[in-house]
Amino acid sequence: MAKHEEVKHGVIFPAGEKNEAFAQFFTGQSYLQSLVADPEVNVGVGNVTFEPGCRNNWHIHHGGFQLLLVTGGEGWYQEEGKPAQPLKAGDVIVIHDGVKHWHGAAKDSWFAHIAITAGTPEWLEPVDDEAYSQL
Amino acid sequence: MAKHEEVKHGVIFPAGEKNEAFAQFFTGQSYLQSLVADPEVNVGVGNVTFEPGCRNNWHIHHGGFQLLLVTGGEGWYQEEGKPAQPLKAGDVIVIHDGVKHWHGAAKDSWFAHIAITAGTPEWLEPVDDEAYSQL
Repeated sequence: MAKHEEVKHGVIFPAGEKNEAFAQFFTGQSYLQSLVADPEVNVGVGNVTFEPGCRNNWHIHHGGFQLLLVTGGEGWYQEEGKPAQPLKAGDVIVIHDGVKHWHGAAKDSWFAHIAITAGTPEWLEPVDDEAYSQL
Repeated sequence: MAKHEEVKHGVIFPAGEKNEAFAQFFTGQSYLQSLVADPEVNVGVGNVTFEPGCRNNWHIHHGGFQLLLVTGGEGWYQEEGKPAQPLKAGDVIVIHDGVKHWHGAAKDSWFAHIAITAGTPEWLEPVDDEAYSQL
């Protein structure tokens, strides 16, 4: 039994549907509920839920930023060249323009964060399986 | 006993300290926990908690916008010229540039939202006591 199973049913905000649009940039299953997608607002807001072991590829936000507000479960955030840092509900991550990074669930836990995103993402290679497995 | 008393202890994110900086623009007591305040990011993110009956003055965001992600309790959002709409956990409000509005708690309930804000606020008159009391 994975930890924080309750997260899959949504934490305050709905977990949403299977994240098909970005599936090619994720390892494992994620779910996405758009919260704000408005042409007059220069950020998008989404609730992203990760099954245990799920994480996104390394990526960069160009001409923008990303803010992560962790709402449930246990996960990881890593910037290139730095150690991965554990995340739990209440943690906040600020990702600056041009910083290569990834985020996702712990191996044994569901995980959810709200993502506030500006700019254009550049999707890169998956997180190395062996490096992830050693977290 | 007010409804949703648990909200005053923070919902996922800390309720923070008494919101002294903006007290002059609020009726009643609010609490503010800054979540993101970064010179490289063009939005600020804060967790705002309202005691029962607390609401902010009418205000406008110029050259920006405000997004409200309701995390707990029961409250209200109103745009000028429109009826007030009730808010509960999971609701999302998008406030466009230049729109005069207010938000706050219900008379009998604690209330909390995350606010994502860009631009410069213009603070205006308090919400009319009689109009609020009739909500």
